[in-house]
Amino acid sequence: MKKIAILGSTGSIGRQTLDVVRAHPHRFQVVALAAGGRIPEVIEQATSFRPNIVSVREPSATPEVRAALDRSVRVVSGSEGLHAVAVESGADLVVAATDGAVAFDAVFAAVERGISIAVANKELIVAAGELFIAAARKSNAAILPVDSEHSAIFQCLVGEPKERIAKLILTASGGPFWTRDREAMHHITVADALQHPTWQMGMKNTIDSATLMNKGLEVIEASRLFGIPGDRIEVLVHRTSIVHAFVVFTDGNVKAQLAPPDMRLPIGYALAYPDRLPGSTDVDPLAAIGGGREAASTALGFERPDADRFPCLGLAYKALAQGGTAPAALSAANEIAVRSFVEGGIPFEAIPVVIEAAMDHAAGHELTLDAVREADRRARERAEVEIRAWTAATRR
Amino acid sequence: MKKIAILGSTGSIGRQTLDVVRAHPHRFQVVALAAGGRIPEVIEQATSFRPNIVSVREPSATPEVRAALDRSVRVVSGSEGLHAVAVESGADLVVAATDGAVAFDAVFAAVERGISIAVANKELIVAAGELFIAAARKSNAAILPVDSEHSAIFQCLVGEPKERIAKLILTASGGPFWTRDREAMHHITVADALQHPTWQMGMKNTIDSATLMNKGLEVIEASRLFGIPGDRIEVLVHRTSIVHAFVVFTDGNVKAQLAPPDMRLPIGYALAYPDRLPGSTDVDPLAAIGGGREAASTALGFERPDADRFPCLGLAYKALAQGGTAPAALSAANEIAVRSFVEGGIPFEAIPVVIEAAMDHAAGHELTLDAVREADRRARERAEVEIRAWTAATRR
Repeated sequence: MKKIAILGSTGSIGRQTLDVVRAHPHRFQVVALAAGGRIPEVIEQATSFRPNIVSVREPSATPEVRAALDRSVRVVSGSEGLHAVAVESGADLVVAATDGAVAFDAVFAAVERGISIAVANKELIVAAGELFIAAARKSNAAILPVDSEHSAIFQCLVGEPKERIAKLILTASGGPFWTRDREAMHHITVADALQHPTWQMGMKNTIDSATLMNKGLEVIEASRLFGIPGDRIEVLVHRTSIVHAFVVFTDGNVKAQLAPPDMRLPIGYALAYPDRLPGSTDVDPLAAIGGGREAASTALGFERPDADRFPCLGLAYKALAQGGTAPAALSAANEIAVRSFVEGGIPFEAIPVVIEAAMDHAAGHELTLDAVREADRRARERAEVEIRAWTAATRR
Repeated sequence: MKKIAILGSTGSIGRQTLDVVRAHPHRFQVVALAAGGRIPEVIEQATSFRPNIVSVREPSATPEVRAALDRSVRVVSGSEGLHAVAVESGADLVVAATDGAVAFDAVFAAVERGISIAVANKELIVAAGELFIAAARKSNAAILPVDSEHSAIFQCLVGEPKERIAKLILTASGGPFWTRDREAMHHITVADALQHPTWQMGMKNTIDSATLMNKGLEVIEASRLFGIPGDRIEVLVHRTSIVHAFVVFTDGNVKAQLAPPDMRLPIGYALAYPDRLPGSTDVDPLAAIGGGREAASTALGFERPDADRFPCLGLAYKALAQGGTAPAALSAANEIAVRSFVEGGIPFEAIPVVIEAAMDHAAGHELTLDAVREADRRARERAEVEIRAWTAATRR
């Protein structure tokens, strides 16, 4: 029985983690849940999964939760609550599925104690990846990526000599503008951007997928998780999102991982690792690789992305090469720029311009958790300044 | 320094094994070579690689070899010679690259002593696979497949829980008649059959690729090597031969191995295992998956084979389900049928008819090395009888 704690249980990854646990009740036990604002949902989750500790963001919400649950459940809140869920719950595996930096301290505390982490918190790896991986190495904690691309690489590397990696190749869906030429991309609207071809995802993720910044951030994550420099990580556009990554080895052999675009698969892998979950062996071979049971054939297509049309991808490589807090600044500035685009503040093509200016301003070489937080803050501030400047210039 | 002995050093796999050793002289040392008839070539190989033991088929050839080499080299012949190369050479790894059953005793003797075997001898696995794998398990010898499809599966399974395999999927080039309809396949000539789309291979292999018998035999091999029943092994046609196999796991994740069609890659993998050979990290991502450095895109296509047009594939599944010496009989009868087709004796569509009759006649349930040899002999005899009957009926 593997004991699981979830940071961010009412988010998309948190919910799907509980789906996996529900499907395998004899393998996993949920010992702690931490949620943000969705109080009725976390109460329902706790009633169903019976954890020992439940944490919510606001202390003011604890009486409601306490009243709804069995008296034996410890109800906590805030950063102390996150710490309790991650460290004091007796979890074998912490699923880090909160957004942003809110759970950094709790996750670091867990990893320093040698507790395995299933990471779905992108900022944790992008902004603080080097510190996080160093801490995991020191304590011998396993870091299990939940993102489908990084899970794919991880799966391809199981049992392999890591020093024989020649290249990592991440695939990208290409987003909704893949077929547009450069000129047409200047006229992209918010409505356009929200038509993403394969994945069901939130607004921020959808825009990141349209700019390919999602892939840029994943390149940085891959570099941190697998210790491979940026010049040995490539991106190929693969519209159908069946192949999630390739690993090219120095001996010329290549391994790939494929799966339908369903986050429960990489989550299930992270939960069960080093085992895999049992299931049906009655699998149609074409359906398993993205065709259908009725199909006579299927094809998996791959294209090169063009740096020209997707400057955000280049900015991510720049941040990775620069190191220090540049990735933290990149990620923070991107959030502000995307929010402004969605709110009608700046046009689509201004997103990379704002990000680059903010990153250049905010990034430093020192790398500590405090420096990461400071770069994040400075990048957001500077991005707002750049946005105001852009808007002012356009109005004139 | 890994010590390598090669059974069949002047064949295609033997030569390519020596290419790999030549490219990595500080990793591998050739301690013994066994060749068939090509005496000048084996002398050249021995002069270059300086093994301790050299074996040739005919005792009459030993004086010539002895005269050409350093006096310290032990020159042997026949089945005793094969035994000396496999067992007395001090090899860490024996490359079993002879055809047919000639080296069975030598390879079994090596595996029983716990010496690792890189297997390129298909008959060894098809006809005697259960005995061979059982012997390897007992002695803890590693069995490393050299065939590209089985190397692909092996690579996908490194570090994985074997009990979580849902399906193995082998790819097939489809051979030269993939686009012909059933009627047109009746009129196939030897000249037609020799136009194989991707691989450079010998006559027998080319016809086996046209009938899909090569894939049928590989299904049997996969079943033996990985302990998976036939109903969980599938074949997909993949014309460009870049993806060699997929493994579908019970958790829904799929892994694939890709490589250009160059036998030195699986050979290098078998030689270096569990390490991989070092090499360049300057790899173009599209070129690595079958596109080109100049290409903007590439696609990997997969189709279902139709049992109707390729009855030999069905016969292999039948032999696998039947077990015992049926696979040995299948493989032996196939050799005779293919030879007759190539010599103008029987038409293309008679190949499966002859094989099935011979297999049904010769196969038995007992499985020993002697029973395998007997089934092989009986199947060949019966196939000749069937061929004569066919020819007689056609003349009338």
